[in-house]
Parts: sequence; C-alpha cells; structure tokens
Amino acid sequence: MLAEIISVGDELLTGISVNSNAAFIGEKLAGLGFDVHWITTVGDNEEDIINALGQAYNRASLVILTGGLGPTHDDITKKVVSQFFDSEMVFREEILKKIEKLFQKMGRKMSPPNRGQAEVPEKAEIIENGIGTAPGLAFKREGRTFFILPGVPAEMRRMMEKSILPILRKMGSGRITRSKILRTVGIPESDLYQLIKDFPDRFPEIKLSFLPQAPGVLVRMVVSGLSVEACEESLALGGDMIREKAVRFIYGEGNASLENVLANYLFDRKLTIGVAESCTGGLISHKLTNVAGSSGYFNRGIVAYSNEAKIEILRVPEEILLKHGAVSPETAVAMAEGVKRISETDIGLSTTGIAGPGGATPTKPVGLVFMGYADEKRSFSEKYLFGKDRMWNKERSAVYALNLVRRVLLGYV
Amino acid sequence: MLAEIISVGDELLTGISVNSNAAFIGEKLAGLGFDVHWITTVGDNEEDIINALGQAYNRASLVILTGGLGPTHDDITKKVVSQFFDSEMVFREEILKKIEKLFQKMGRKMSPPNRGQAEVPEKAEIIENGIGTAPGLAFKREGRTFFILPGVPAEMRRMMEKSILPILRKMGSGRITRSKILRTVGIPESDLYQLIKDFPDRFPEIKLSFLPQAPGVLVRMVVSGLSVEACEESLALGGDMIREKAVRFIYGEGNASLENVLANYLFDRKLTIGVAESCTGGLISHKLTNVAGSSGYFNRGIVAYSNEAKIEILRVPEEILLKHGAVSPETAVAMAEGVKRISETDIGLSTTGIAGPGGATPTKPVGLVFMGYADEKRSFSEKYLFGKDRMWNKERSAVYALNLVRRVLLGYV
Repeated sequence: MLAEIISVGDELLTGISVNSNAAFIGEKLAGLGFDVHWITTVGDNEEDIINALGQAYNRASLVILTGGLGPTHDDITKKVVSQFFDSEMVFREEILKKIEKLFQKMGRKMSPPNRGQAEVPEKAEIIENGIGTAPGLAFKREGRTFFILPGVPAEMRRMMEKSILPILRKMGSGRITRSKILRTVGIPESDLYQLIKDFPDRFPEIKLSFLPQAPGVLVRMVVSGLSVEACEESLALGGDMIREKAVRFIYGEGNASLENVLANYLFDRKLTIGVAESCTGGLISHKLTNVAGSSGYFNRGIVAYSNEAKIEILRVPEEILLKHGAVSPETAVAMAEGVKRISETDIGLSTTGIAGPGGATPTKPVGLVFMGYADEKRSFSEKYLFGKDRMWNKERSAVYALNLVRRVLLGYV
Repeated sequence: MLAEIISVGDELLTGISVNSNAAFIGEKLAGLGFDVHWITTVGDNEEDIINALGQAYNRASLVILTGGLGPTHDDITKKVVSQFFDSEMVFREEILKKIEKLFQKMGRKMSPPNRGQAEVPEKAEIIENGIGTAPGLAFKREGRTFFILPGVPAEMRRMMEKSILPILRKMGSGRITRSKILRTVGIPESDLYQLIKDFPDRFPEIKLSFLPQAPGVLVRMVVSGLSVEACEESLALGGDMIREKAVRFIYGEGNASLENVLANYLFDRKLTIGVAESCTGGLISHKLTNVAGSSGYFNRGIVAYSNEAKIEILRVPEEILLKHGAVSPETAVAMAEGVKRISETDIGLSTTGIAGPGGATPTKPVGLVFMGYADEKRSFSEKYLFGKDRMWNKERSAVYALNLVRRVLLGYV
C-alpha cells in the first residue's frame, strides 16, 4: 500500500530544523510493510499545503502530515486541512478540559492561545495528544486515510506509538515485504561493493542497496514474496553470503548501534572499561552511557584536555609528554594504561589528537589521532588521519575507538 | 526567486537516514535570499525521480538535487537526469584521471565500479567533487538551473561551498528579504508567545514564527523591503521589543549554539570550568569541547558514573553518598566543589540524576536530575524533573546545566 509523508513548517525549508519527524514516520511505516514512496515538505503557507495534500491524495492511500498545529498565529495547518476536506470548525468542550487538565498537571497556568486548540474540524476524528496541547486529526475519504499530527517530535512520536501504529497494524499492507540491514564500519562503499559484487547474480530476487552513513556503510536487502518464511529464508541466505565476504566489517544488524553491540560483548564477557579522552572531549563516554544499564560495564571517563589533567589524574609520566608530545602513540598508550589502572577496569581506551581547526604543527596535521588500548595482556596504539572538520574528526575518532575495542574482543587485532 | 530541493534515496524514505542535506541546502539558499518553498524526497526509482524533476521544473527557477550518484548499481540518478534533459552519456577521460589521482592520494586502489563515474551526460557542466569520486552536474534550460550533487554529506557540503554558492551569489534573488532568529531556552512556546503577543500589531511588516527545538524555542522574524537598511532597521526594532520582554531566556541569535555563547562569556571573563558528570555521561564535556579553542577555558571533565569514581576522583565524602544517595542536592554540590578543587578552575559544574529507564526508587523517579554549581563565592544545586526518555533526559540535562552557568554569569541566579 502506497504511503506518503507531508511535513509542514518554514523551519524545515530554511534549515533551522532537520526533518527528523519524516525519518521516524518513514521507518515505522516501512516496518509495517507500507511502501513510503514520497515525502513532501512545504512551508506554513496555505497554497502549498493545499497542493501538497492534493498531490498526496492522488498518489497514495495513506498520508501522514505533521506540523503547524501549534497555538501561535503562524500555525495554519488545522484551518487548511479543514478546508481541503470541506469541513466546518467546531469548539469541543471535552478537548478544552483535557488541555486545562494538562496545564494543571504541569503546575502551569494555561495561556489564552491554547484555548483555540479546542477548535477542531467537524469531520475529523480526534487523536489524543497526551503530553502537549494540540490534538491530532484523522480524516477518511474514498479509501484514503489522512492523519494530521503536531510537529513537536516528542508529541508526534507518542501519538504514533499510542494511536496511529495500532490502527495501521490492522490496516495491513496486503503484500509481504521484508528487509534486513547489515551495518559495517571501517570499509569504504566501493570496496564493500567490490567484495560482494556477485550478490545481484546470486540473489536476483533481493534488492540490494548501499547507504553511507556516519559510522560506516549500511547494506540493505529488500525482498517481496509469497510468505514471510520465504522472504526471511531468502534474506538469511543473502545475509550469509555478505557475512562470508565482509564479516570483520559488520558490527550489527537492523537498528543496532556500535555502542549497543559493544555493550553486549562487554556484558557477555563481564568486562569493564574506563575511557580517557583528549580530542574526543567526552563523546566516547557519552556514546557508551547512551546504552541503558551502562553502569554495569562503564566505570568512569576522564576528559583529560590539559596536560595537567593527563599527568594528575591519568598519571601519564611528564617525560612522555615532554619527549613525544600530547599527540603521540606513547601518550595514547600511557593514557589507556592510566585510566585502566585508576579505574581498576579490564580495559582502558584512550584518544589523543588534533581535532582542529587550530593546533596543527608541521609534523602533526589537523585530523591526526592516536588511539590507545590497554588490557591485562597488552597495550598498543593505532594511528589515524581523518579530515579537516572538527565535529567530523570527533565523531569518527569516537566511532573508530569503539570499533578498536570491538576488533580486539573479536580477535581481529 | 523560487527554489526547490529534491532528495533522492530509499534510505530517506524508510528512516535509515535523516535528511540533513536538505536542511543544509535550505539554510544556504535562504541565506542568499532564495525562497525555498518545496522539498521533495523520493526513492532510487526512475518514475518517481522523473516526476519530481518535472514538478520542480514547473514550479521553480532553481533546483538542487542530491543523492544517487554513487558507484553502486542502485544509484540511478545520473541516468535518469540525463534522460530528463534528453542528453547522451559520454566518457570523459579527464574525470577518470581525477578519480585515479584521488585514489592515489588516499593510498587506495581504485575499484572497477568507480570507472563508471567518469561517464557523464553530454549536456551537463561538470562540478568538481574534490573529496569523493562522483562529479556533480549542472543543467540549464529555459531560465531554470538544476544542480545535481552526490548525497554523501561531506562531498555535497564541500561542492556547495566551493562551486555552487559562488554561482548563486551572482544569480542574486532579485528582491530583498532579511531574517533574524532569536534563540531561547527555559520557556515553553505558549508562554513565550504570551510574553510578546503584541508583536504582530506593533510590527505588522515582520512575519514572526516560533520553532520549538531541542534546547529551546527559536523566534524567527522575516521581513521584505526596499533596501537592506530598511529591512535591518525593522528587524533590529523587532528584536529590541522581544529582548525587552524575554531577555533572560534569550541566549543568542542566528546560528549561535548555547555552548558557543557560554564559551564567549568564559573567554571574555577569563574564567575556566571543570565538569563532573554522572547522568549526562560525558555529554556536557562533549558539547563544551565542540567549540574550537575550548582548551582555553575547559580543563578537564570527569564522568563519575560509579560511586567509587565520585569518591576517588572527585573526593565526594562517602558519608554524603551514604546519607543522601548519589542522586541528591548534597552530592551534586559535592561533585561540583570536588571537580572545581581538583582541576583548579574558577567554576565547577555537575549533574547527577536518573536518566532511565532503570534506577528509579519510590522517592526518586526517572527524569529526576540535580545540577551542582560551585565558584569561589558560593555553591548550590538546582532540581529538575524531566521525562521518561533516556536520550532526551541526557540532552535536556546537559542543556540546562550549560544554561545554569550562563544564568549565573549574567546575574539571573
């Protein structure tokens, strides 16, 4: 069944906000077997919203629109959608009661603009918001279903989970499509393609695509078939072939994140880790603690930005810093050993490098990063040369450091 | 001048990637005065790409398309665009040379699929990539200009900055539009609207909008006029009115980030800061070190996840942890004082809380966070109750902690 997403909001057109709502909805719909084939983004502008609604109406059976339901004067979606579906506006006392109750619960006074949010199109079914003041709307006509939701991500997500997805699960998609994603890190897209270039000949029924992303390249397989079992068998065989060729680059499947995968290895082996960060500035600790329950393996992280911090907390010998500099294999190893020792963990991990834009020397360019690893048996460092962009250097350094631990635990290093 | 963006890629429809490219391009075009009124996202599918190109051709004078130029079999954009502009494909030796050179520079062997990237539409002008293998394309017809760029963000961004924006600056937009954004934190959208509800009457020429975002609510003013001076005067007066009503919630303008604003205050006053994080797990240090030159005010960060780390490194007295628990105002203050003392900074900042989903007790729910602040003159804590979501609790805690320091430095606390 064809589905479309319409995102409304000036902030999406001018880059003030990134359209994460469409990504969230697309993922949920695809997971239920809907064929999301078109996403339209328009501003808070009557004519464009009407045109976007009209196009989606002609192409798709399911449309989810978000944005422009707020209490302020620039939010016009409700009015425009009512017009599109030839519906009068009515004031619904029970919605006002819910909004008033919500304000009570938050211990805040309701502002007058929120009163207008109890006015809704007569022809719409109401979808409860729960955490915000704007109710959602559902319209049905000529076999099409339109859901209109607020653009505030937390509200939209909750309404999708609580109200919309249960309805969509019942609607079903009428055909069987299954997909599988293998997530890689540490290999460029064209090299990966080269490794598995026989795939399309061996599995002509599977649509294969490559998606370069922040930590690495995702390989996605999509197959349609007569039964769930047939689809899943096909994907399993395809997945086996890719694993056979590229196993050491594949860290997980589906929505797995590198930090979650690593967390599971650490949990399974009952290992603990301490982290000493210089150029990544806390990002590795942040990633590791994004995992619920991370206190089970993560003990502490030291962001040792200054030389003093490296000496005082991590006990990096001053001679090493003087002789080799803060950005050196020797310092990386001493930091990893230091954090392992002071936190009494099984593993110590460190980064030291030049994130940029400043700090480069003739022999140490921006993007140069050393990673240190220490466990009971050995300590060593790895050298990387990333790019010129500070944020990108921090992100890649953090990912490669986590991958270093993964590679050690799997015996690849 | 009307502009549109087309994003091509299955990964954007199914939520595997968030469309950050469209946000980047939208921001750049809006900054040059182009009226970006429509963003279309379609999959790697011939019919949909053709339809998206056709619609954009009928509506806009400038179109920027990204995605689907990679070396793998699922990348069909180049072929489809050539077809749309009735152009033959030709093999260009000089492009192959550039690709070969790029591989040499990276010390990698070129894979055969990359050879195909030297085949380009005859009617297109070539836009050099510089860091990747896919060249960009430019087509001109009947007063419209189409740019076709790769979807890999780093490549797209570089090509926009180096090649496309200089061309667009010359094209000009033919009319004068200026905008200004004021960024707030710590006040809900409807309360903010209430504070400045006279604005539309006092400044009818300015279009005002409210954009709820991760750290707070952005207020955006847009005005069109006869001269740059008239527009900017109008925006300055409008900005003054908003500041008058909501000054303590406004942390910056335009693209300012809270961490950059705070960094400037710290630099100006020659203050240094040390951070002790429990529930934010490194995120505050990560944000502070995202600022280039942050080593000037940021000395070290301690991610003290375990009680042992709080005691050993931060010297939090064990009695406090035993009597009040790790998540308490007393521990927050002791952590802030501890990190200030061991790092010999002017300010110590701390967080301790229950990020969730686990760890709640009958008196300490998920989302409860204490922030500690210490300087030469005083120490205190603030209590917050955020929501149920771990990532959201980390993000809000980090933002509110940075805002706490900002509020202290401005004399609001």
